[in-house]
Amino acid sequence: MAMRTLRDLFEHQLKDIYYAEKELVKALPKMVKSASSQKLQDGLEEHLDQTRGQVERLEQVFASIDKSPETEKCEAIEGLIDEGASLLDEKADPEVKDAAIIAAAQKVEHYEIATYGTLCVWAKQLGLEQAADLLGESLDQEKQADMNLTHLAEHEINLAAETV
Amino acid sequence: MAMRTLRDLFEHQLKDIYYAEKELVKALPKMVKSASSQKLQDGLEEHLDQTRGQVERLEQVFASIDKSPETEKCEAIEGLIDEGASLLDEKADPEVKDAAIIAAAQKVEHYEIATYGTLCVWAKQLGLEQAADLLGESLDQEKQADMNLTHLAEHEINLAAETV
Repeated sequence: MAMRTLRDLFEHQLKDIYYAEKELVKALPKMVKSASSQKLQDGLEEHLDQTRGQVERLEQVFASIDKSPETEKCEAIEGLIDEGASLLDEKADPEVKDAAIIAAAQKVEHYEIATYGTLCVWAKQLGLEQAADLLGESLDQEKQADMNLTHLAEHEINLAAETV
Repeated sequence: MAMRTLRDLFEHQLKDIYYAEKELVKALPKMVKSASSQKLQDGLEEHLDQTRGQVERLEQVFASIDKSPETEKCEAIEGLIDEGASLLDEKADPEVKDAAIIAAAQKVEHYEIATYGTLCVWAKQLGLEQAADLLGESLDQEKQADMNLTHLAEHEINLAAETV
């Protein structure tokens, strides 16, 4: 795919994050299942729901620019998911595994924060107001999800892990 | 490697980011070479210097916990670097390529922000004050680098890319 213009680049990154969100919808249930803390399970379940909503929101972004939703394989998210999955397969005490799950999830959140942040700025630059608003909503959700995980890690999970 | 304790997990993630920083020292010169904007080239050069400093700082962290520096292959950073590299190989106008380089670099910054953030919290939790301070310095550098790239993108690169 040639990316001659900022609009081409915008559409390329949109397909990339659409692929990433769909992969996360598949990957998150395994993380939920591996978590021991009820609060962590609940938080990840909630984020799975949000992620499904973000897939739909991306479909609205595609519609807003008169395009059909398309995915583009994204090596970065595959690496992030594989790395998280390999941690889940390690032998570890449940509390330590929970700390590892949070670390992996926050890497994914930050990938999405960077991507939505860029897409949002590009959409504004291109005068795609509706797309910018939709992408901004997902960006805010990711930032909030990251903060929630930090709070849970600092106030519960890491304390439990340290006593192991 | 078994990760029974939070300390095991801390050391595992430390090896992971040590690998990532070393890979970035290898990957950044290609990004510098592909950039057209002088300001972007300068910013990436500066970040290459910082990254070399972060490699050394990680060696100090290893020393502070009486460990020799070791790497652990990190699939996430490989995916991020490969994705960035594939963008550089695309046919694109120089201004658009610069916007793509910033997007790729910010994904890497966010990967590092997430990793240093987690390591910093774990180090404090484990009472590793010296390690926490060193990791905190790199965390602050990454956050600043990310903000600098956002500023450069919004005030110069994206404007140039949009006129293509």
